[in-house]
Amino acid sequence: MTRTVLVANRGEIALRVLRTCRELGLRTVAVYSTADADSAAVHYADLAVCIGPGPARLSYNHIPSVIEAARMTGADTIHPGYGFLSENADFAEVCAAEGLTFVGPPAAVLARLGDKAVARALMAEAGLPLLPGSVTAIDDVDEAFALAEDIGYPVIIKAAAGGGGRGMTVVRDGADFRDDYRRTRAGAQAVFGDGRVYVERYLDSARHVEIQLLCDAHGAGVHLGARDCSVQRRHQKLVEETPAPGLDGATVAAMGEAAVRGALAAGYVGAGTVEFLVDAEGNFSFMEVNCRLQVEHPVTELVTGLDLVAEQLRVAAGEPLGFTQDDVTPRGAALECRINAEDPDRDFAPAPALITRCVLPGGPFVRVDSHVSSGYRIPPDYDSLLAKIVVWAPDRAGALARMDRALAELELTGDRLVTTADFLRTVLAEPEFVAGHHDTALLDRMRRRSSEPERSTA
Amino acid sequence: MTRTVLVANRGEIALRVLRTCRELGLRTVAVYSTADADSAAVHYADLAVCIGPGPARLSYNHIPSVIEAARMTGADTIHPGYGFLSENADFAEVCAAEGLTFVGPPAAVLARLGDKAVARALMAEAGLPLLPGSVTAIDDVDEAFALAEDIGYPVIIKAAAGGGGRGMTVVRDGADFRDDYRRTRAGAQAVFGDGRVYVERYLDSARHVEIQLLCDAHGAGVHLGARDCSVQRRHQKLVEETPAPGLDGATVAAMGEAAVRGALAAGYVGAGTVEFLVDAEGNFSFMEVNCRLQVEHPVTELVTGLDLVAEQLRVAAGEPLGFTQDDVTPRGAALECRINAEDPDRDFAPAPALITRCVLPGGPFVRVDSHVSSGYRIPPDYDSLLAKIVVWAPDRAGALARMDRALAELELTGDRLVTTADFLRTVLAEPEFVAGHHDTALLDRMRRRSSEPERSTA
Repeated sequence: MTRTVLVANRGEIALRVLRTCRELGLRTVAVYSTADADSAAVHYADLAVCIGPGPARLSYNHIPSVIEAARMTGADTIHPGYGFLSENADFAEVCAAEGLTFVGPPAAVLARLGDKAVARALMAEAGLPLLPGSVTAIDDVDEAFALAEDIGYPVIIKAAAGGGGRGMTVVRDGADFRDDYRRTRAGAQAVFGDGRVYVERYLDSARHVEIQLLCDAHGAGVHLGARDCSVQRRHQKLVEETPAPGLDGATVAAMGEAAVRGALAAGYVGAGTVEFLVDAEGNFSFMEVNCRLQVEHPVTELVTGLDLVAEQLRVAAGEPLGFTQDDVTPRGAALECRINAEDPDRDFAPAPALITRCVLPGGPFVRVDSHVSSGYRIPPDYDSLLAKIVVWAPDRAGALARMDRALAELELTGDRLVTTADFLRTVLAEPEFVAGHHDTALLDRMRRRSSEPERSTA
Repeated sequence: MTRTVLVANRGEIALRVLRTCRELGLRTVAVYSTADADSAAVHYADLAVCIGPGPARLSYNHIPSVIEAARMTGADTIHPGYGFLSENADFAEVCAAEGLTFVGPPAAVLARLGDKAVARALMAEAGLPLLPGSVTAIDDVDEAFALAEDIGYPVIIKAAAGGGGRGMTVVRDGADFRDDYRRTRAGAQAVFGDGRVYVERYLDSARHVEIQLLCDAHGAGVHLGARDCSVQRRHQKLVEETPAPGLDGATVAAMGEAAVRGALAAGYVGAGTVEFLVDAEGNFSFMEVNCRLQVEHPVTELVTGLDLVAEQLRVAAGEPLGFTQDDVTPRGAALECRINAEDPDRDFAPAPALITRCVLPGGPFVRVDSHVSSGYRIPPDYDSLLAKIVVWAPDRAGALARMDRALAELELTGDRLVTTADFLRTVLAEPEFVAGHHDTALLDRMRRRSSEPERSTA
């Protein structure tokens, strides 16, 4: 039985997890770095343990410190949030060895799906559609080149150990392939300690659509609908929504079934996401599995009425799923905007600062997940996510209007503080976004249009 | 067509209405007293007009000033919120004469239903169950006394012009009746300028359950389920929820049908509420009609997915209802707590103050309607409502846990600032509230219990 949950994370997601734990009557432990000593999570949890200095490798990513904090506080369960140790197979294994419940899939599943080449092979075997490419990693440059020539350009070279938009190179011309291949391998070796890469077709304009899954430890799995996350800059999501615009119910059902089939074939347990690319004709291709709660999980919560963290904790405690696929009846539309402390005019450079005044949006059907308040100093050590603004409405048009209203209400001021809020209002007003015809190249097109010389209106 | 909406109110409800107007793309006008010059609504609206000094009779209740503000700003529609001019038939009549759309029922309906004795007679005629009592006002003390003796004590003497918990006297002993009758009449004459009163049976322990209605100008009406508002102090609601605990679906459907029938018989147009008392056996009796949006409307919004202010505006513009009774499919449970600047230990005396730090709750399924933020000075001129915290969950137990979590998150600090938040957490933890067996006498019982000498536990 779960009694004490240690949340091995920071920022908004630590608070998010702590909120559910409190509602469930669980004792809570926060861990924090010295850079986060005065954070909301530290005040929120029943206990808080400092696990090291600011750099994540010395604190949030330092397995022995996290395990020691759990031991000291009598925690029986560790929720890793997203990022940091959330998909770390070694960490999951250490938790198991120490008798701690890790909220996430078993270590072996993390290892299997964390290797993108292995995951690709597994999903191919489970019958999921894949983009043309290598099923496993390719170690030989000539073999890779022949494959690329065969697929046709553009192709993308991906590090097997990559993820979250890192370790990828798009190649548009065969003449560049060999150099790009060697560079991506060397980069992957340096960053991930694993130089294996694979090659697949690259779609210049596709939608990024993902299926939220929930699988229990008894072989049951359900999907909770599709999220469109096509608004991205440098493969980082900025806006997410559900349902995915322009996808019909049959396509979403087929994607959902494929995702559940693939996940169960991989032995998946817990909440997870299967990411797909969807081309202009509505054909979907497997991209990767995210073995954790996603930043954008609230949009799914708002349309399904489920608390995904509560579901994660139940599954981690060994409970069977309390509902079946037929019980999942999404209602309306939900939209999330990520408010980052970044300067859109300086290529989204992080802009840490002291927040002197913070007024978050409210009112009907607006949810805010945020750890910041007036007087909060944004530490420069971590990602720059300040708040997630999430809205619900009966339909997409209503959600867009509501989000614009909510973004307009947001007050975040401070010396040299710049956020993405105003930029996101511009994105949401883009005709192709409003029409739901956008794809992952939307921001590039917006940038090109804004840098074109103004046409004379005389 | 609605283009510009003037919001003739202040505080959280002004902001609530402005939010929806902004989502609908309408131009907005706020009016404010000098006491509210720096309020959130003033900053939120496209235009803001000062209509007089702090006392409401010189500003928010001063019809010529409100009308002049509408004329100056080109407003075509006036939303009165709740309180102030919202149920004032004269105001609705002036609006109509000036060619302004009043968001509420026609003046004649306000006059009819605003007179509680007339409303009672109307509803009796429409077949709604009433508590034993006089169907119309009684002007003769002997006649009233004979009726009270006939009904049996306790009885309640109510001012025909009263409402919102004012102008009522409970009589428990025949010996007191004549004095109480004369005193209530005199008080009603002094406060409302109308001394008419009527008499009905008083239920010491009943539930206060109300039906939310929506009627269009074309004779269609739907109900949106029941709200239980039994947690009251001095007839002022503190906690509201939907669905009403302990009422079965058949009873709620019967109450809903009766409410729609009565409202349509009275010519009702707009959003409104029919209040009932429900006894321990589940028998319901008509109490009164509230011809406006209620403070507690958000709980209905969270379970139905409707935006009641948007519906009000549509109906006021002459549009037919866009849905039927069968389309209303409430989901889950919602709970609202009113956070007032009042001291529960000093009989809820208002405690105006400067709010130096304000952090409102957030996260999954929490909605906050509030006009306050850090640095807000609570004016002493008006009611003390600072924020409405509203939560949704799949069931009542989940909503209670979520509300406790949300109330615990609320930070409202300031020199001498006292709020009802901690007191409400105590109420929500009361075993009879948790079980859903409470009634309007809950707070009295809690007070008696807490003032009883502690029993020895030795």
